[in-house]
Amino acid sequence: MSKIVIYDTTLRDGAQGEGISFSVEDKIKIARKLDDFGVDYIEGGWPGSNPKDIEFFESIKSVKFKNAKLTSFGCTRRPKFTAATDPLIKNLVDSGSLAIALFGKSWDFHVTSALRIPLEQNLEMIYDSVNYLKSLGREVIFDAEHFFDGYKANPEYAMKSLEAAADGGADALVLCDTNGGSLPIEVGDITETVCKRFKTVVGAHIHNDSGLAIASSVTAVQRGAAHVQGTINGYGERCGNANLCAIIPILELKLGYQCVPTGKIEEITELSRFVDEIANLLPDERQPFVGRCAFAHKAGVHVDAVTKNESTYEHIDPGCVGNNRRLLVSELAGGSTVAQKASKLGIDLGKKSPEVKAICDMVANLEHNGYSFEGAEASFELLLKKSLGKYRKLFDLVGFRVIVEKRGPNEQPITEATLKISVDGREAFTVAEGDGPVHALDNALRLALRQFYGKELAKIKLADFKVRVVNSREGTAAKVRTVIESTDHAEAWSTVGVSTNIIEASWAALADSVEYGLLKHLPK
Amino acid sequence: MSKIVIYDTTLRDGAQGEGISFSVEDKIKIARKLDDFGVDYIEGGWPGSNPKDIEFFESIKSVKFKNAKLTSFGCTRRPKFTAATDPLIKNLVDSGSLAIALFGKSWDFHVTSALRIPLEQNLEMIYDSVNYLKSLGREVIFDAEHFFDGYKANPEYAMKSLEAAADGGADALVLCDTNGGSLPIEVGDITETVCKRFKTVVGAHIHNDSGLAIASSVTAVQRGAAHVQGTINGYGERCGNANLCAIIPILELKLGYQCVPTGKIEEITELSRFVDEIANLLPDERQPFVGRCAFAHKAGVHVDAVTKNESTYEHIDPGCVGNNRRLLVSELAGGSTVAQKASKLGIDLGKKSPEVKAICDMVANLEHNGYSFEGAEASFELLLKKSLGKYRKLFDLVGFRVIVEKRGPNEQPITEATLKISVDGREAFTVAEGDGPVHALDNALRLALRQFYGKELAKIKLADFKVRVVNSREGTAAKVRTVIESTDHAEAWSTVGVSTNIIEASWAALADSVEYGLLKHLPK
Repeated sequence: MSKIVIYDTTLRDGAQGEGISFSVEDKIKIARKLDDFGVDYIEGGWPGSNPKDIEFFESIKSVKFKNAKLTSFGCTRRPKFTAATDPLIKNLVDSGSLAIALFGKSWDFHVTSALRIPLEQNLEMIYDSVNYLKSLGREVIFDAEHFFDGYKANPEYAMKSLEAAADGGADALVLCDTNGGSLPIEVGDITETVCKRFKTVVGAHIHNDSGLAIASSVTAVQRGAAHVQGTINGYGERCGNANLCAIIPILELKLGYQCVPTGKIEEITELSRFVDEIANLLPDERQPFVGRCAFAHKAGVHVDAVTKNESTYEHIDPGCVGNNRRLLVSELAGGSTVAQKASKLGIDLGKKSPEVKAICDMVANLEHNGYSFEGAEASFELLLKKSLGKYRKLFDLVGFRVIVEKRGPNEQPITEATLKISVDGREAFTVAEGDGPVHALDNALRLALRQFYGKELAKIKLADFKVRVVNSREGTAAKVRTVIESTDHAEAWSTVGVSTNIIEASWAALADSVEYGLLKHLPK
Repeated sequence: MSKIVIYDTTLRDGAQGEGISFSVEDKIKIARKLDDFGVDYIEGGWPGSNPKDIEFFESIKSVKFKNAKLTSFGCTRRPKFTAATDPLIKNLVDSGSLAIALFGKSWDFHVTSALRIPLEQNLEMIYDSVNYLKSLGREVIFDAEHFFDGYKANPEYAMKSLEAAADGGADALVLCDTNGGSLPIEVGDITETVCKRFKTVVGAHIHNDSGLAIASSVTAVQRGAAHVQGTINGYGERCGNANLCAIIPILELKLGYQCVPTGKIEEITELSRFVDEIANLLPDERQPFVGRCAFAHKAGVHVDAVTKNESTYEHIDPGCVGNNRRLLVSELAGGSTVAQKASKLGIDLGKKSPEVKAICDMVANLEHNGYSFEGAEASFELLLKKSLGKYRKLFDLVGFRVIVEKRGPNEQPITEATLKISVDGREAFTVAEGDGPVHALDNALRLALRQFYGKELAKIKLADFKVRVVNSREGTAAKVRTVIESTDHAEAWSTVGVSTNIIEASWAALADSVEYGLLKHLPK
């Protein structure tokens, strides 16, 4: 089974996508996940292009990777410097990464019109930069920017740029379709020509401006490339980069290559959703292989056929990529999930029992109203307990009032929440301030519960807070979904609330979150 | 210039997509728009499969099309009927459409396992059905379901199914990749083989389960197909159908075919957004050619180069498809973006001028604090005007108070906002209720501004509201970013606010949004 090198650039080129802004902490989390998944290279950033990337390369030094090589990205030396004196090259060396991706020009038009230097000088810059980094013992991946456009304009010069890199000792020659305008047939033909000419490993780095990045990457491999660059979920500038979440399944499941360690491809759906979660982007439901709709059947004919024989309307088994079949007209899929969850609570229910049917109907109704239990298992468990008579109520809300008051254009707003709850007939009435209305309400709730459940409450910490507008077209009257994650340092759990009123939605998620945590720690 | 027939199935196969549910009026609106754009066929539905489709074919009879042929869709006769007696075939005839798409089996496995009839009988069903409809003077397009999978399993039988249709008099033989699992190279090779064998027009109908539908459709044309089926925005079951909004630009702008009447391709971005609007789906911003990000540049290097010469980082001129270039303001962008934006306001600044430098620093600082101007160009413009002394203040906030009060666990919360503003020394003090705190504040602001800017205010509508937690790990004390989109039906603009207090963040975005809209309509 032939191995294809997977080079992930989610953290560098992916971060150029509109709406994506990773913190250093986000980048480290994603890098760890990518390493665990088994990619070969993780391009971490361009050290020196901004302070965040420098901080990232510092912080990541303490992380040990199992599979991946951390890679820094930068350009060939600039005309006025030697490779050894160019501060940008020095940044790459100082980043400490053993592998370095260097991009250089391979399109004559860019050399003369953007760099404004003689063609020959650009070749020297490529050779020098690669050669210098190799002399320091680094692995060097040469990214030939605009290679396909360059080759179409001047094949001889484009080839010379690769030759300069190869002569300098480059470990891989990566052909970039930087503007994403080339067709798969062109990419295939040109890649094959390059592969025949060089002994060095050839790679492909394709952008998706024509919606062809997956096809061009796969075609490049079919015609001889052994290294593919892309991003998780196809993040990237403009229309994005080649999407590894489709390329890896195609290469492994349809063409018999090995991309990641055996068995790991089953984790690709989870990886895709993890990265969307960190990036705080709504997952693309129609995304091939890993999207929520990728194996969802709606047409009557299809649902009927697929339940008889999956291969009638599915090109692969969804389980191969860790995804699930969903039948949109039937509650069959839901029933087994509910029965499974109930059995975890010690209740055995048939997946077609009336109890399960009733819960499925309730969930369908709540989801119709904007709820989503996929990321809120604790709320789902409380709901299940309530339906099955296994729920123990810890407190009742009597009422709350939240006031946000701003007394001038430059004044900080004052926020206070008053809250009354009752526990076994005893009332607690508290008031608290906060940075915002939900924070104030959280503080008031903690104050109120302290006298009843102080010991257990001390263990629960609020870890994460997310807000999403469900039907944004309604403007400021839109429905809002709040998800809160809490932790007791042993476990994390998530809860959800939905309302047109953000305070109400947050209250629901907050109350569930605290209740779930207390139930966990109180004597049974 | 060779003509490629464009066959749109947005209204039939597209409507199988999850979350899509067109009313009869919706379908008529889209059909008119498609006809105006200039597609050759509009597949309207499967008459008889549901009451809505029958109603649609009735209603559409009164519509005169300029370019397109309205087409009805159905299957070949069933084993127990003749073509003339099968009620499903009768429905097709009764629909009144002059063109009919008939799908039939071409994969032997489906004939024996799903239909459970002898292979020969399926061929007779195809021949009879096509022949019967041709005898009634209809145009017949034969959709060979699962053709590529069928050909890979049993090429001889797959070819026989096409032969039966051709012998029956079919006007086009359409090869379907129903499960979307075939690779472009396979699709190309098989299409070429079919084209060599038949004189009839050959077409391609490809699904996107592998993310390859655009590539496979284009490859099919390059190898001999002259008819392409697809949907606007790639709607369709599972991962969707082949996306005509990418295929048409590729065929026309890159390969020199003619798909729609000359000049019409410049309307494709508007068509894409119109259909999303009717379907009530959020447009895919990263969609090739027509997406909002398709020509959006963020990386400093790219912005710099693109302002010098567009072709450096753009594969086509965005105007060719009616789209626009956008330069994103972010910490990754630099002075050129700011200078460009200023020049649009009529202020010429060098990209390295002190003013531009000061604005870049301010943006970097605000972004560090959670702002993001990428999706909030109106807020950026106001910021720019303020920095450059071009800002005209329309109102001052004196103060506001928002109260959310809940008086029992099952009571709806009561939300009210009081607001005081001043305009040229005259105060307005208002109170309003709302579905949530931001809605109440929005209502109070409109009431307050009405006496000063009533006419202009009436034009501004709040269209979209988004909330994102910036540093979610801070729990309920996290910072929140609110983005509001408003519209005056001619243009849409977005504004942003950031605070640990969601009410404060929303206020900032709301105030900017209304101010930008008023400034647009007030006399200069």
